[in-house]
Amino acid sequence: MSLYFPTAQERKRRTIFPGVNINTCAAEKMMLSYAELEAGAVVGEHSHPHEQVGLVISGKATFWIGGEEKTLGPGDMFRIPGNVKHRVVALEGLVRILDIFHPIREDYL
Amino acid sequence: MSLYFPTAQERKRRTIFPGVNINTCAAEKMMLSYAELEAGAVVGEHSHPHEQVGLVISGKATFWIGGEEKTLGPGDMFRIPGNVKHRVVALEGLVRILDIFHPIREDYL
Repeated sequence: MSLYFPTAQERKRRTIFPGVNINTCAAEKMMLSYAELEAGAVVGEHSHPHEQVGLVISGKATFWIGGEEKTLGPGDMFRIPGNVKHRVVALEGLVRILDIFHPIREDYL
Repeated sequence: MSLYFPTAQERKRRTIFPGVNINTCAAEKMMLSYAELEAGAVVGEHSHPHEQVGLVISGKATFWIGGEEKTLGPGDMFRIPGNVKHRVVALEGLVRILDIFHPIREDYL
């Protein structure tokens, strides 16, 4: 196993909501989470103490973060401070998102 | 300006090596850096105290991290601990990479 190049096998896979599949990879103080959302899939409102940032790789999805709503597409970024409620609805195509958490989400190890 | 949804205008653009253009966005304790590398472009060997993680979005590139070498393509992840030397050579197509740093790189603000 490489410290620098995690293999696909090393990434932990889980379904966190219907139609929302993620695979995660922990580094020292950050965790990567690559998410695929089927069109219409919903990441229900939730929050966590970890800071979260990310980028939409493909597809379109509407994000609600704190009191704000915005529809994002490929190349768009978002920032979710710790403990701020957020939810996501996938609109079109296969929505691919890279999320990054700090510190590491122990529940995704 | 939104705390949650950074605009394209808010992202800071810079050319860090010939053919290597990045735009960056700081959150609280992490910084996103979206990089586009032209085929053949080289990110020269360097290191920094910040931890770095990332994912190749498109194209193919060879990474040297510490003593290891690997060619990565779309969906592949990498982890670069602080102070570990690394360099990248873009091989094919327009190589798009999302890098994330912790803590924030003040030199990219």
